[in-house]
Amino acid sequence: MEVINLDHISANPLIPEVQEAMIAAIKENYGNPSSQHQIGERAAEALESARETVARLINCAVPKEIVFTSGGTESINHAVKGLALANAEKGKHIVTCNIEHNAVIRSVRRLKALGFQVTSVPVGKDGRVNPEHIAKAIKDDTVLVTVMHSNNEIGTIQPIEEIAKITREKKVLFHSDAVDSVGVVPIDVQKMGVDALSFASNPFYGPTGVGGLYVRRGVKIWPLLDGGTQENNKRAGAENLIGIIGMGVAADLALREMDARLAHLKKLREKLLRELPNYIEEYIINGHPEYCLPNLVSLSVKYIEGESVMLMLDEDKIAISTRSACASGSLRASHVLLSTGLEYADAQGTLVITFGVDNTEGHIMRFLTNLKETVKTLRDLSPLYKKPAKSSG
Amino acid sequence: MEVINLDHISANPLIPEVQEAMIAAIKENYGNPSSQHQIGERAAEALESARETVARLINCAVPKEIVFTSGGTESINHAVKGLALANAEKGKHIVTCNIEHNAVIRSVRRLKALGFQVTSVPVGKDGRVNPEHIAKAIKDDTVLVTVMHSNNEIGTIQPIEEIAKITREKKVLFHSDAVDSVGVVPIDVQKMGVDALSFASNPFYGPTGVGGLYVRRGVKIWPLLDGGTQENNKRAGAENLIGIIGMGVAADLALREMDARLAHLKKLREKLLRELPNYIEEYIINGHPEYCLPNLVSLSVKYIEGESVMLMLDEDKIAISTRSACASGSLRASHVLLSTGLEYADAQGTLVITFGVDNTEGHIMRFLTNLKETVKTLRDLSPLYKKPAKSSG
Repeated sequence: MEVINLDHISANPLIPEVQEAMIAAIKENYGNPSSQHQIGERAAEALESARETVARLINCAVPKEIVFTSGGTESINHAVKGLALANAEKGKHIVTCNIEHNAVIRSVRRLKALGFQVTSVPVGKDGRVNPEHIAKAIKDDTVLVTVMHSNNEIGTIQPIEEIAKITREKKVLFHSDAVDSVGVVPIDVQKMGVDALSFASNPFYGPTGVGGLYVRRGVKIWPLLDGGTQENNKRAGAENLIGIIGMGVAADLALREMDARLAHLKKLREKLLRELPNYIEEYIINGHPEYCLPNLVSLSVKYIEGESVMLMLDEDKIAISTRSACASGSLRASHVLLSTGLEYADAQGTLVITFGVDNTEGHIMRFLTNLKETVKTLRDLSPLYKKPAKSSG
Repeated sequence: MEVINLDHISANPLIPEVQEAMIAAIKENYGNPSSQHQIGERAAEALESARETVARLINCAVPKEIVFTSGGTESINHAVKGLALANAEKGKHIVTCNIEHNAVIRSVRRLKALGFQVTSVPVGKDGRVNPEHIAKAIKDDTVLVTVMHSNNEIGTIQPIEEIAKITREKKVLFHSDAVDSVGVVPIDVQKMGVDALSFASNPFYGPTGVGGLYVRRGVKIWPLLDGGTQENNKRAGAENLIGIIGMGVAADLALREMDARLAHLKKLREKLLRELPNYIEEYIINGHPEYCLPNLVSLSVKYIEGESVMLMLDEDKIAISTRSACASGSLRASHVLLSTGLEYADAQGTLVITFGVDNTEGHIMRFLTNLKETVKTLRDLSPLYKKPAKSSG
């Protein structure tokens, strides 16, 4: 039986065009783009061609605003640490929000060890940041605001443009982690007004281990990787050219197919939300109903452990994700869910279902059928499931 | 006409077995090794299998001493910054040497901006560090010694074991940049006694953009990339699994074919050095005659610019490298060559010729024939070339 992948956020498959481009690049055996001889020149052309395509995907003013990295995590570390440290003479205060990805949270924590101070603003029940809270948190010595574009657990999209208006007025740098947005929903860095934006190739069906960092022209940033002069002196090290070529092709397709993909994903998401009450009761849909990713449903099923659902569905060859973090040995619930005010037990019962271009409505239906059975089995075993209340979904 | 690649140090071609493994990995469409479902498990198995092979290549005590990175530059930045910052309570003094790669030099410089102090010891005419100089440079507050295993411009191999004896006795951490050594010459981290060792996949015919960092069990190090718990909490971010799989296959072959490759490379190197006086006169061979890489010849040709030789040979479809850095706009000569006491003009006339498994003696002969003509043409134009002296080669 085919495995149904409803965990696209953990890893998207490579689409055929990307596979073909990477295989061609492997066979081509490119040289080093930094070499000045012919072998190097061909490699440099391939590199710059990918940069132009990726720059178009997010509407950069010029392609050299794109720095290729080893993925979203590197981009975020580079942006947060590199902007804060390069501009520390302005001050050592950073503003962020409570539901950022660990790459942001831990980068900021690392800066605290180097003498920075941090203000983290809360989010509402829907996971949204109130831009006024950002405005109030900014102090004279604030050097950087970092707020994600979309959240990878609940899908909420933040009011980035409104926050950028505030940061520009207050002359504070603004970075946005857009790893789960770029290539999925339309992103225009110029319209948004950000100074830096992190993204990765896999969310739009490029390879893992490749990403990009947008740094607006003229913005001062330290490299995270010091050494050679690659990437316009912003990121040293021989490039992952095969991966970057794959990312370029993926970016081109993401741009051209954006509307069709959005329509497909929204159809699947609506199908799931519409059918859900016919299969289970007593659940919560997390995140904002309107400002949200088209490919993600965060579903808290009451009285059960998300981890158990995930493992049981896995036996039925359906892959989903959970952020309950039982696997790590600790029984901590997701900081994102708790920040939205979700009860601890409900956070533990949360499933993250993420779709891709390869999913069909049939996949949704098979998921729902198996979910119904799984939830019944688990609730029958659960000491918490005594008095079924009315569905809150 | 086929391009003859005598610039393997800039980019090695992927060998067929590595190409096949990477193409298979692309078609396999692995998931995310961190996912707990079946799709993720298969990816995790592929990842750990590559780790075991790479660990064997440098004789780690346990595979988890290997951290996969995006290449040599990331490994070096991670080691130098991560070890210094994680152990800064011991002190903020670093010892290094004058001919390190820019990734080390600039990482150390970055640490200076964060309050560290640095002592850089000189090298001899042959590019070797005297371990006694390291011993003398170590102070009570020295936290880290970083000395490369082999130099990428002159090929000199350093007395790493002797330096490690000193650092262990003085309880100072020791990192070695072994990017141009691992997979080329035998490396045994346990025998060497280093605490950390940086390397990359391309020097042994794996893909660029993938590398490894050895961190001895129990050694405290900060991640360079903060975020998720990948790589045993030492390096966050979704893995470049396709690249890592390629690196694993390359490591396996490097280990099995090490002796045959060494014999082939040494034969080519000896051929070049033996024939050279029959083709040109007045040149210097840089580096140590015995403690040196088997695949590199650094050749300073008097009275001419290395850059011009490189460009003229490129027209004849022969790729070599030069470190005279004219391309960067500045006319600075290599810090490595100047550190060995080479005259500025001779440094400018330096060619770096690096061999690979795909080179033949015929390539060497064609290079020599073209070099003879090129040198004659350039010297006839050179105002410096008035009174030919006797060959110093």
